[in-house]
Formats: sequence, C-alpha cells, structure tokens
Amino acid sequence: MKREALLIYGSSETDADLFHATGFLVPDPVIFLQVGRKKTLVLPDLEIGRGRDEARVDEILSLSEMQRGLGRGAPVARVIRRLLRDRGLRRVTVPDRFPVGLADPLRAGGIRVRWKPAPFRPQRVRKTPEEVRAIEAVQRAVEEAVGRAVDLLRRARIRGDRVVYRGRTVTSELLKTVIHGALLERECLGKDTIVAPGDQGCDPHHRGQGPILPGRTVILDVFPRSTATRYFADMTRTVVKGRASPEVRRMYEAVREAQERVFSMLRAGADGRGVHRRVQEFFRRRGFRTGPWGRKMEGFFHGTGHGVGLEIHEAPFLGPRGGRIAAGAVVTVEPGLYYPGVGAVRLEDMVLVTRTGCRNLTRFPKVLEIP
Amino acid sequence: MKREALLIYGSSETDADLFHATGFLVPDPVIFLQVGRKKTLVLPDLEIGRGRDEARVDEILSLSEMQRGLGRGAPVARVIRRLLRDRGLRRVTVPDRFPVGLADPLRAGGIRVRWKPAPFRPQRVRKTPEEVRAIEAVQRAVEEAVGRAVDLLRRARIRGDRVVYRGRTVTSELLKTVIHGALLERECLGKDTIVAPGDQGCDPHHRGQGPILPGRTVILDVFPRSTATRYFADMTRTVVKGRASPEVRRMYEAVREAQERVFSMLRAGADGRGVHRRVQEFFRRRGFRTGPWGRKMEGFFHGTGHGVGLEIHEAPFLGPRGGRIAAGAVVTVEPGLYYPGVGAVRLEDMVLVTRTGCRNLTRFPKVLEIP
Repeated sequence: MKREALLIYGSSETDADLFHATGFLVPDPVIFLQVGRKKTLVLPDLEIGRGRDEARVDEILSLSEMQRGLGRGAPVARVIRRLLRDRGLRRVTVPDRFPVGLADPLRAGGIRVRWKPAPFRPQRVRKTPEEVRAIEAVQRAVEEAVGRAVDLLRRARIRGDRVVYRGRTVTSELLKTVIHGALLERECLGKDTIVAPGDQGCDPHHRGQGPILPGRTVILDVFPRSTATRYFADMTRTVVKGRASPEVRRMYEAVREAQERVFSMLRAGADGRGVHRRVQEFFRRRGFRTGPWGRKMEGFFHGTGHGVGLEIHEAPFLGPRGGRIAAGAVVTVEPGLYYPGVGAVRLEDMVLVTRTGCRNLTRFPKVLEIP
Repeated sequence: MKREALLIYGSSETDADLFHATGFLVPDPVIFLQVGRKKTLVLPDLEIGRGRDEARVDEILSLSEMQRGLGRGAPVARVIRRLLRDRGLRRVTVPDRFPVGLADPLRAGGIRVRWKPAPFRPQRVRKTPEEVRAIEAVQRAVEEAVGRAVDLLRRARIRGDRVVYRGRTVTSELLKTVIHGALLERECLGKDTIVAPGDQGCDPHHRGQGPILPGRTVILDVFPRSTATRYFADMTRTVVKGRASPEVRRMYEAVREAQERVFSMLRAGADGRGVHRRVQEFFRRRGFRTGPWGRKMEGFFHGTGHGVGLEIHEAPFLGPRGGRIAAGAVVTVEPGLYYPGVGAVRLEDMVLVTRTGCRNLTRFPKVLEIP
C-alpha cells in the first residue's frame, strides 16, 4: 500500500497543524507535504535561510526554483502539481479547511484530493510531557496576572456606585492593562481578554468595558499565548467587589459543583457530549432555567469545555460536537450561568485527562467575594 | 439578473473580510451570507445576545434553531444548505480560501459554489478616511515605541563588544519589552516584532535575540494591531549603535534612495509588479548582487511592499503577484539589502496612494547611526 501523502497550504501563524509539524513560524502561506515520515517545505526566497536554520523538516525546496519554467509568480496550484508529479503522487489528503480555490485546480489537473476533518494531526490531541509543561508555564502567568487584578480590587474601596483605587475609578480597561502587563513580563500575549462587569458578563464573549460595579459580578477570562512556545492556557474566575446577592451566591455554588462533577467524570474514554449533557441536566434539576430571554439567552448556553494547546479552541470538545476523550488531552471545564439583571458566573479550570481520571493544572483559588 | 450571493464561513478573528462586513468579533467560525446589500449572520446561542447588540448586519439567525430537525450539532454544510434553500438560492460565491470540506458537501447537495480570489471584498482595498485615521493612530503608537527603543540605545554605552544600559547588557529581548510596553499603553498589540542584531537581520523575518552588537546593524520592524479598531500599521528602521562600516552606509543610502524612487512612482494606476522590478533593477545597477549565498540568499530577495489594513499583509502587493494599485490603498514601501557578514538594512514607510501620487503616513526620522 502506498503511504498517505498529507498536504497543507497555510501560514503556521494561524495553522496549528503546520506549526506542530514543522516548528517553523512563517507569516505567509507556504506548501507543506508529508509522505510517510518525510516532511518537505516549499519556501519563498525570503524565508529560505531562516527555514534551513529553524524548520524541523527533512527537505526545504525553493519556491522560486519550483516556479522556474512555470513563470515568476506562477499560481500555487501549479507548483503543488509539479511537486506531486515529481514524487509520482496522484492523490493527497488535506485538512477540511484546505482552500477550495486550490483544491479545484488540483483536481482539474488530475490530482485526487481527499479531505479529513479535524484533528488533522491526531497526535496534537495527546500532549507530550513537554507540551504539558509549556501549557502549565502559561497557566502560571495567567494566575500571576489574575492575582494582580484581584489584588488591586482588594486594595480598592467602594465609594457609592464606584470602586476606587488610588483616586481612580477601577474599570475593566484598568484591570485588563494590569493583566496584560503581568502577562507580558512572562512573555505571554493576552488577546481579547474578558473583564466583564455586571450584565456585560451575560454575553459570555463580551470583553467588557467601563466601571466595575460594587456588589455585581465581574467575569475575568484570561487565555493568553506564550510568544516563546506558542501554547495557550485558559482560566476564568468570577468575583464580586463587596457583598454578592444571595442569588449570585447560589449560582456560584451551583457552577462550582457542576465543575466538580465534571472533574469526577473525566478520564480517558469519557464522552464529551455525554459529559456536557449531564451538566445541562444538573443545572436544570437545580432550577436554573436555560432558554431565550427577550432577544438574548439566559441560563447555561455554551459548551462545557474545549481542548487547549497550540489553538485556544481545539479538539476534544465537551459539548454537542464532542466525542471520546483520549488520555493526554488538556481540556477546560467551564460551566457558567447567566441571568441578566442578576449576574453572570463562570468558573474555568484546565485539566489534563489521564487514563484513570484527570489532573487539575489550575491552582488559583475560587473565592467569590472580595472584601 | 439575480443578485450575487456571497457566503463566508469563518471566524472574524482571522477572517478580515468577515470582520469588515460585520464589525463583529467572534472567535469561532460562523456562517455569513450577503445577498445584494442584505447581510445575514448565523450565530450559536453563545453569541446571539452580543451579536444582536454589536453586529452590523440586517438579520441574525440562531444556529440552534437552524439545526432543529437536522439534529443538535448537525454539520455546518446542512445548515448552509437549509439557509440557501429557504432563500431560493442555488449558487453562491465564496472566497478562494473557503474550506473544501464545506464546498464538497454543498456541491453534492446541488449548490453551485464559485470561488473568487482575494480581495473578496474589493472595498477593503480603498480605505475610507476613517480607516486611514485608524491606521495612522496605530502608526503613531509604532513611532512612540520605536522612539523609546532608539532612546534607550542613545543613552546606552558601548563596553567592549556589548552595549550597556544602567548596568544591563542591551538585548533584542530588552528592546522588544520596551516596544511592546509602549504599544500596550496605546492599546496596540505587538506580535512577532523584529529586533534583529547583526547577521540575524539577513533573514528578513528573523525576530532576533541576544545582545545588540556595537557597530553592527539592528533591524527594528514593528507591526502591531490596535485592539480597539483591529487595524495594523507597519514600520521598519535600521540603526547601528556606534559607527557603521562604509559598506553599511552605502547600503543604507541605496535603500533610502530606492524608497524615494518608489514614492515618486506610486499613484493610482501604478503597476505593483512593475514598481517592484524597477527596485530590483535599481539595486542591480548600483552593484548590489542578489542571489544564493551558500544555503541562504543575499541582496534584495523579498517584495517591495504590501497593503496594510485589517490584515498585516493584504492586497495590493508591490511584488511578483502585484497588479494595478487603486487610489485609497495603504501600502508599505520597504526595500532592503542583506549581506551576511556585512549587515542587513531595511527601511519601511507606509503610504496612502492617491490619484496623483502618495502621502507618507510615517513621520519617524531615518538616521542610521546612534552615537
């Protein structure tokens, strides 16, 4: 049987499979071919030198040489066809996200193009010990950063409907600056960080803005990437400056219990979809309704968790599209409850799934009220 | 004639067309359909509330409602087919990067899928005055940041083969921290910033590491994105702490002259490919050889420039794949010369192309030597 030929066309800035396969960071799309264990990269002149120094591949070809005879600036599809023809390949397997604008001309040129849904490189799911260490290092940075934000809130004072620190109103923006600064010191880049006060938190991806409100929930969801290793980590905490309402305390306890239940269900072979359903069921039984609320949603209406690695959202998923979870996967566990006018509560830890259970990679405490 | 139906499936975090069309930031892929001027987004429950508040579209549909009858977690292709069928559409136009894993099942379901090369939204090329202001704001942040790095180098002292500031060896890492901190203060995120001392700069995308070397070139290439507007800016300067060699000075003057020549050629209707060829020719005539140098390249072996906007590299291009340049395009002009053992010089300004010429959006001075 002929060995499978895997083809990727993309930039390793955004294509995690390509970065995983080559360890080489390139901002513009390039051609990657793997036949058996042999890896080939086709690079433009601009990247050749760096590629020869840095890329973990067996062969680097020059794009401009491959274009010779096809014309300077010849279309990528023609270069790929030449590459495949030189190797006697008539069929390739590509990721499902492979561009149709390349697949069509390849097929028209007689190449059989088969696509495969994610994970394209299944070895990305089971993290090596080195990868787990890289993720944990980012997680320590997250905890340092969230710790500084919580510290600032602790030192701040409530003045009427404001929270004030050193004469300044404490805002979402200020807390994000503190968080991003702390991350930067540890070579981590925070992007789209969420610090969502009050009802803003009821839109789970609202990044938040404006003053922190005393006695109302604040969601802090921080998921930076290491600029050194390119791995992510992900954590969410919910806090209230001052006293939380009884309703919010009840929500917080339910979310925390939901999280504990997931921890006890997770092990190699657990079903991501089933785990998610049981969280939905748990909230329902506790009387937390999920459904439309005017033009919005209320209750628990997002997934229970997702894999974390070279992408912030990657397989496996604890949600409607979840499947069996393999040992070595790093996943978030992040149930939440959202009731506009009452509050928004989400707690998110990151765990490593093992053969017999899971190990929590998160050390940050869960304390709702900040006096 | 039936109006064209444009279909995108992607995340506006990475898909600039989708962000441009909707102004809505969403981390996971969603379905976007535009028929004539009418824009529709299909969002998961998680994003519905925020989408209704923030997305500049005419209609927001619920993914979970669209999946009703198809099964919870039904494949995206089936949802898209239902969406098109409800509107009586049998053909769609997609970007060339549209996933083959979606195009195939759509076609199998009787939809005619035609793809179109970039720019998918040609209106992204001609920047509005508001977009130019957004890019200029980022450019001011870049100049502040590079200014701080140059300032630090000015205050630093040469001690043997090191450059020392307040008792610390000045490194690429230190300068990048200074740059990223200054960017952050202005809500800009620096990523893959280049501070490349000595021969590292001869790989144009080497991000750089380790000590700054006295008397050797340092390339500073800074291209952050505003976290508020999501626009980029891009600037490169080359400096030498101490005295530059006569060869490097000659290279610097040639690169500067090449840049001036491009400025004088740029106007609406100019040909990106032709402009690039003339830069190559200019260097050749001046005696700067381009070609292989061992396993690497030397001379001028990258494009002359690229569009800048919601993507850091976007149409139009001044290079082998360049075409006619429209008024309103913002492009970089960045010739460079690279000779291992001698030095690396690149100068990059960002200009706005107008009907009659171009306006330089960059104000930062060009001074090679820092005493």
